[in-house]
Amino acid sequence: MGMTMTQKILARHAGESAVKAGQLIKARLDLVLGNDITTPVAIKEFNKVGAKEIFDRNKVAIVPDHFTPNKDIKSAQQCKFVREFARKMEVKNYFEIGQMGIEHALIPEKGLAVCGDVIIGADSHTCTYGALGAFSTGVGSTDMAAGMATGEAWFKVPPAIKFVLDGKLPEWVSGKDVILHIIGMIGVDGALYKSMEFAGRSVGELSMDDRFTISNMAIEAGAKNGIFSVDEKTVDYIEKHSKRKYSVYKADEDAEYEKIIHIDLSEIRPTVAFPHIPENTRTIDEVGNIEIDQVVIGSCTNGRISDLRAAAGVLKGRKVDRNVRTIIFPATQHIYLEALREGLIEIFIEAGAIVSTPTCGPCLGGHMGILAEGERAVSTTNRNFVGRMGHVKSEVYLASPAVAAASAVMGRIASPEEVVK
Amino acid sequence: MGMTMTQKILARHAGESAVKAGQLIKARLDLVLGNDITTPVAIKEFNKVGAKEIFDRNKVAIVPDHFTPNKDIKSAQQCKFVREFARKMEVKNYFEIGQMGIEHALIPEKGLAVCGDVIIGADSHTCTYGALGAFSTGVGSTDMAAGMATGEAWFKVPPAIKFVLDGKLPEWVSGKDVILHIIGMIGVDGALYKSMEFAGRSVGELSMDDRFTISNMAIEAGAKNGIFSVDEKTVDYIEKHSKRKYSVYKADEDAEYEKIIHIDLSEIRPTVAFPHIPENTRTIDEVGNIEIDQVVIGSCTNGRISDLRAAAGVLKGRKVDRNVRTIIFPATQHIYLEALREGLIEIFIEAGAIVSTPTCGPCLGGHMGILAEGERAVSTTNRNFVGRMGHVKSEVYLASPAVAAASAVMGRIASPEEVVK
Repeated sequence: MGMTMTQKILARHAGESAVKAGQLIKARLDLVLGNDITTPVAIKEFNKVGAKEIFDRNKVAIVPDHFTPNKDIKSAQQCKFVREFARKMEVKNYFEIGQMGIEHALIPEKGLAVCGDVIIGADSHTCTYGALGAFSTGVGSTDMAAGMATGEAWFKVPPAIKFVLDGKLPEWVSGKDVILHIIGMIGVDGALYKSMEFAGRSVGELSMDDRFTISNMAIEAGAKNGIFSVDEKTVDYIEKHSKRKYSVYKADEDAEYEKIIHIDLSEIRPTVAFPHIPENTRTIDEVGNIEIDQVVIGSCTNGRISDLRAAAGVLKGRKVDRNVRTIIFPATQHIYLEALREGLIEIFIEAGAIVSTPTCGPCLGGHMGILAEGERAVSTTNRNFVGRMGHVKSEVYLASPAVAAASAVMGRIASPEEVVK
Repeated sequence: MGMTMTQKILARHAGESAVKAGQLIKARLDLVLGNDITTPVAIKEFNKVGAKEIFDRNKVAIVPDHFTPNKDIKSAQQCKFVREFARKMEVKNYFEIGQMGIEHALIPEKGLAVCGDVIIGADSHTCTYGALGAFSTGVGSTDMAAGMATGEAWFKVPPAIKFVLDGKLPEWVSGKDVILHIIGMIGVDGALYKSMEFAGRSVGELSMDDRFTISNMAIEAGAKNGIFSVDEKTVDYIEKHSKRKYSVYKADEDAEYEKIIHIDLSEIRPTVAFPHIPENTRTIDEVGNIEIDQVVIGSCTNGRISDLRAAAGVLKGRKVDRNVRTIIFPATQHIYLEALREGLIEIFIEAGAIVSTPTCGPCLGGHMGILAEGERAVSTTNRNFVGRMGHVKSEVYLASPAVAAASAVMGRIASPEEVVK
């Protein structure tokens, strides 16, 4: 029996000729990642076991992005602790504000993830780099500590579900709609501890940004990782951003999949996940009249340049509803600059939206746009659990940047088709 | 005995032909202002006394700028409470994020303050509008409540100190240096419950933005208000921004001043207020080697377009030191847009600074750049009290935007003259 793409990458990194689902392996790591919430805990574990050095100062990345610019004294102290560790350990890829952005947008942009990598990060959305054909997955702070010390991690080799993509995305439909559609179909435990492998002739129809969004939310279906087959676009992206060597792995023809699901991209409609769980999806046509108080466009899921372009396409020459606080977060400084030069930031400000510096911000109820009791937000982020963005009696509706922007204009959840005629 | 400019404005608003220092008067109000911290308290007082309506829906302004975009659930709840009040009372000048900015930059920009006005605001830096030749002063939330209900407020007529300005500001010296110089000279109680009246032939040498900065910090010398004589620049500004009628008041020739202080602008050097009190000033030449962790450029004191231009003049084509987190806050959406169109935002991002949406942010230890233990910031804000921007063991050095930008580049407190040669 052959191996899936994920299994092949894991086998190579474990020094095995073959691995199979369920097997426990120890794999070599190409990158160990942490943020300002998880790294302090990891550092304490690292110190507790008496580790003196990190395994490779080029292969640890620390991105203080959650409560930065520091929201309070506690987060300032946490960041200081992390900063001092990074300096002491000479962590090459420590990114201070001004040099940085949201970790999962930043790591690919800085060329720190390439296809064939094994990456762990103490953040659940580390699965994002599957878009590049890497095996990457979120871990706890203890695993991050062990990874920093040893450069290795234990894994149980995951089984896989294959998603075969066909057809072409209609106008105003994006990667976010694809992944919400899939989560709506299989549920938040639909891929529990499995690989989601995206293949088929329409992978090439998806931009890299769409792929990042899809891989990013694999965890919302419970998946261990969400990985795309590598094509020309992947290689172009990697060669543009990274100087690292990379290896392309392909699933064997006879690889075993627990399930094979065919997705016709042309049939997907703009999709919204209603409170309080990402599987609670409806197409835009089934939404009804949901008035809103806030729109958030950004995050590791949807704060990339294509996302901002989609939002600007809706907002250009229009005004957001005066009852909707519209907050836009470019995911990195580089994306901010690109958006600025393309005139997108100007479009946003003219529309009455505000543009924040890159930060995770309200996505996880951190800061910069927390919801009060009874308030509703349409957000391009990844989770809409109870209280995720604020008060336990607030509501989050997950959607694409285009839907979020249209909703900001209309004051209720709306389709871009309603706004841009 | 004649009246000072302040006394003339107060007399007119009290319906008196003349008033004198120490007299208690009840004056008609042209504007009552509140923010997201003080307005909730004022609303509760307003309701407690059984008030049903505000005295004039055009003469109350509410600007949620301190903990917005909301930093946490508590601030979100406070803002919601204020928003609902504003809707119920049909407050015309309620500014949601996206329409707004920092109150003391926004009010003049929106034409809500003109010369001759009497303005109270439940925020200590309400004295800012003295730059326009208005009497404006900070009050407590209870006075705000009474002001909203009745359109009147009690005042004890202040005595005055006259500052006679002569000479011309040298390059890189700005309004911030003037007011820090004055506070260094007279102390933080040097004008306690007095008017600071700025007059003399060199008023005309100062831009409106410089005047706003100077009036803004009058409270840091303990003053009741800080007011400028009205000239062509004032009238130009008002006619550009406001449709309101205005009255120009001049101090009588024989007005009584407790003191007359002559300031030669040409002798002022870039000035820095050391921790932990604004009177603890040194000229840039006396600073020594003070390494820093953060720079903040913005606030109601120094977040206006001239301030951003001064900072950009230093940062253009340069990089901020990698150990200095540099956070820039345009004070209003309008200023942000202006800065963007002038290319200033691009200069900041290219320099490795970050640009936030308008908010009071870290100035008062709110959010968006709080300091950890032992950290030092150079900040263009107005107060450097113990713990003002974060940990009680952090330090804030107050300076102009040009000095702050130069310090960001050098990694220590520095003069723009060192950087721009």
